[in-house]
Amino acid sequence: MKPLLFTLFSDGSLLENISKKLDTNITPITLHQFPDEETYIKIDADLKNQDCVIFDSLDRPNNKLLPLIFLAETLRDLGARQVGLVAPYLSYMRQDKRFHPGEGITSKYFSNLLSNYFNWLITVDPHLHRVKSLTEIYSIPTTVVHAIDNISNWIKRHVDKPLLIGPDIESKQWVEQIANNIQVPCLILEKIRYSDHEVEISAPEIERYKTYTPILVDDIISTAKTMIETVKQLNKLNTQPPICIGIHAIFAANAYDELFKAGVSDIVTCNTIFHPSNKIDLADVILNELKHYLKWKEIP
Amino acid sequence: MKPLLFTLFSDGSLLENISKKLDTNITPITLHQFPDEETYIKIDADLKNQDCVIFDSLDRPNNKLLPLIFLAETLRDLGARQVGLVAPYLSYMRQDKRFHPGEGITSKYFSNLLSNYFNWLITVDPHLHRVKSLTEIYSIPTTVVHAIDNISNWIKRHVDKPLLIGPDIESKQWVEQIANNIQVPCLILEKIRYSDHEVEISAPEIERYKTYTPILVDDIISTAKTMIETVKQLNKLNTQPPICIGIHAIFAANAYDELFKAGVSDIVTCNTIFHPSNKIDLADVILNELKHYLKWKEIP
Repeated sequence: MKPLLFTLFSDGSLLENISKKLDTNITPITLHQFPDEETYIKIDADLKNQDCVIFDSLDRPNNKLLPLIFLAETLRDLGARQVGLVAPYLSYMRQDKRFHPGEGITSKYFSNLLSNYFNWLITVDPHLHRVKSLTEIYSIPTTVVHAIDNISNWIKRHVDKPLLIGPDIESKQWVEQIANNIQVPCLILEKIRYSDHEVEISAPEIERYKTYTPILVDDIISTAKTMIETVKQLNKLNTQPPICIGIHAIFAANAYDELFKAGVSDIVTCNTIFHPSNKIDLADVILNELKHYLKWKEIP
Repeated sequence: MKPLLFTLFSDGSLLENISKKLDTNITPITLHQFPDEETYIKIDADLKNQDCVIFDSLDRPNNKLLPLIFLAETLRDLGARQVGLVAPYLSYMRQDKRFHPGEGITSKYFSNLLSNYFNWLITVDPHLHRVKSLTEIYSIPTTVVHAIDNISNWIKRHVDKPLLIGPDIESKQWVEQIANNIQVPCLILEKIRYSDHEVEISAPEIERYKTYTPILVDDIISTAKTMIETVKQLNKLNTQPPICIGIHAIFAANAYDELFKAGVSDIVTCNTIFHPSNKIDLADVILNELKHYLKWKEIP
């Protein structure tokens, strides 16, 4: 029996590609908002003993959570055997401790809430810092999918002479792994901070790579401030116009335009959050993990 | 020890009046939205063993729920002894059964969710139909506060010769009780439906009350369609311009303006949802019920 696929908010290529690979349609949901802004939900499908998978990225999460809970409850109410969540982007990963007295640890509250409604969770490269693994905060089985191989392959296929750039020491491990994957050079920049507003980047070796295309990589592009700053510094060093790669295309406010204006040649993201910059498809790596939960033999 | 009062979204007179009567300040909350639209919450107060009461109406509910859950979790995390919710307007009361196959019973899902996070719930005249009591859907203690005496008193004090009008048979019990409270006449209109769009109202007795001010009362004014229709029918019968009274001032889209345009002399609501039409204060009746939960002797 094939799994049933659902989405409330996704309209990008990721779910489309996964449904094609599974050779199964996305089950339609009737979602309606009443004039008083309450949500109505209806599903016209036989759900008895079905394995249900909801695909929805949890960027801009506050408005999405209640409809998502309603969907999970409705599926279970109508007889679903399991309801899993594929959230290619998982939110509320930052506030995982009380940095100052009185703060709410939203990361914990959010994971407790999701754990109440889903049998399992798959996500792509969540923003893990102090929490080393999702199992520390989620009480349901969780799987982390990594985008690094798909990013490496995209660079290999589309960039002639790439020079991987890590904007700071935090990005080192990440950027070095990609560079290693595809056997290209890699530089980790060093920030020299003169004051709150004056930062300069030291990159003595960059002289050797004047003909290379710098590739900046980060997990989340939200305000894009770090990337914009790095691009400006690279401009000063007279490099080729860089390409910026992000896994999760949040792009808060006008971050996308600002990043282009800073002088990049391209902005490329994975298709975890629907955005015009989505160029790296993660359907294959997500599907690989989905198999384990569905135990469906015919999955390609 | 006095209870601590909190609110995330309320900015009307109700909580202000309650806090005055309790002679206690509203405890401030730092609520911040990050550029990626995640919520940050911080409370600078000693919460150890405190009784905490959150005041927030749940109209336009989807965007409010996650911050509300975060607030309840934070209070409990910081040591609160109990966290109660006063939701003067309670949403998701309509879909309390599966009218058509496949529908989600949002009323049940919503009450289960709230029951997970609060010790008790107080609300004002919820929209009860098939569900006769909140105890059928809430697993926590609940209290329903009634606005009928406060509405009756407002009419008595502000309208010279009121004629209570029930727009249909559903409103009968409600409208008759108010009329009875203040000893004024009362008419229940009868709808004669000629087609989907043609409705006429039969009210033979209305001739006797040409000098009276018709008062229309309903629990929720959302699209105001029923009220607007009734006002138009009264206009045809050449009554005095009516006054419309609602408990809960939802006013979807431009319903407020449309209702005024239909030819009413005033629109008056209780202060359960902040709105310019709020003229009937419910602080006293809510406070009466609050006492039971707080067991605080000094409450007036």
